[in-house]
Amino acid sequence: MEVTVIGVAGGSGSGKSTLVKKLLEAFSGGGNAHGGESEGASVAMLAHDSYYKAHDGMTLDERARLNYDHPGAFDTPMLVDHLKALKRGVPVEQPVYSFTEHNRCAENVVVKPSRVVIVDGILIFENEALREQMDIKVFVDTDADVRLARRIMRDVCDRGRTMESVIEQYLNTVKPMHEEFVEPSKRWADVIIPEGGFNSVAVAMLIENIRSLIRG
Amino acid sequence: MEVTVIGVAGGSGSGKSTLVKKLLEAFSGGGNAHGGESEGASVAMLAHDSYYKAHDGMTLDERARLNYDHPGAFDTPMLVDHLKALKRGVPVEQPVYSFTEHNRCAENVVVKPSRVVIVDGILIFENEALREQMDIKVFVDTDADVRLARRIMRDVCDRGRTMESVIEQYLNTVKPMHEEFVEPSKRWADVIIPEGGFNSVAVAMLIENIRSLIRG
Repeated sequence: MEVTVIGVAGGSGSGKSTLVKKLLEAFSGGGNAHGGESEGASVAMLAHDSYYKAHDGMTLDERARLNYDHPGAFDTPMLVDHLKALKRGVPVEQPVYSFTEHNRCAENVVVKPSRVVIVDGILIFENEALREQMDIKVFVDTDADVRLARRIMRDVCDRGRTMESVIEQYLNTVKPMHEEFVEPSKRWADVIIPEGGFNSVAVAMLIENIRSLIRG
Repeated sequence: MEVTVIGVAGGSGSGKSTLVKKLLEAFSGGGNAHGGESEGASVAMLAHDSYYKAHDGMTLDERARLNYDHPGAFDTPMLVDHLKALKRGVPVEQPVYSFTEHNRCAENVVVKPSRVVIVDGILIFENEALREQMDIKVFVDTDADVRLARRIMRDVCDRGRTMESVIEQYLNTVKPMHEEFVEPSKRWADVIIPEGGFNSVAVAMLIENIRSLIRG
């Protein structure tokens, strides 16, 4: 089985995860926005977020203070190895990351080879070895103010954080890391999708392309 | 027959015309980069360039001095009417424009209704009535320096103009018009294709999408 790897990158709040969710939903195998796959799915997904480095030697407080928006926070070579394995038809054990513990969980999730593998992550175009595994590179591009607005809404309303802490983190880490690593990585994109999952014309185009890849 | 209108916009030298040419070539009905269609083609093309206003009352010298990079240079309502006619299944008489005479030619070219109609032009996303006729809006985005380099090569090598005249026109008209009208119109795009026709991954995606539209 030939495996086509589709990378979906884009800044925090860009609509990237919404796009990936809609692509996965369109192919009934299912799965969810943060990794996962099911029996016989024709589209699998690996999230770069699941490959955050393990920090067993640190306290929770030390782990909470790490910069999770920097490329060095990820075990990217493991993700590259997993993509290579899936291309060879070998199932992989995708790690599971706990965002409350800021650490890798004990158990893994098995991802089986499928015709199309979506790789989802803010920084996936930044790493050359990872880029080389991708056949189609999609970048979700959304204005910075819209991305900030969405992030505030999500973190304050859904995650119970204070507005001040969200804005402080945005200005101190998210924005500088975006400008240093995410924005320049847009140059590697094959296709740029404004608004990501909220762009119904582009979502339909991507679904049609994946459908024709699966159909062969 | 349902008609899907795909608009392809982008700056001078962006790779827009190369993209349109490759899309037309992929669907054997044929045609060429500047308008045209053939019997039984499933993809037709209307070029905004063909709808430059007629200026029968001016001398060649007066016509040569007009600003052809401004939206006002086009008879856009006629293009809108032609798209509406094609959607109703009615053939249209696309005008033919002479770039040496800087005027509309006497004869027209008949374009028959087809499943997919591509509209090609630098400024086609700038006009609201024209945008409303489009189902998929593709913007070809290429760095300004690359676009200038291509324009110099094309106009000096292929069209026998002096480098000085090409650069003068670029700085005096092409660049300011691009920044005033073309670049802001990118916000209407559903999909942005870096490098246009030189981007083989995106070309393949668009061809696959058009193929599935034709297949129905």
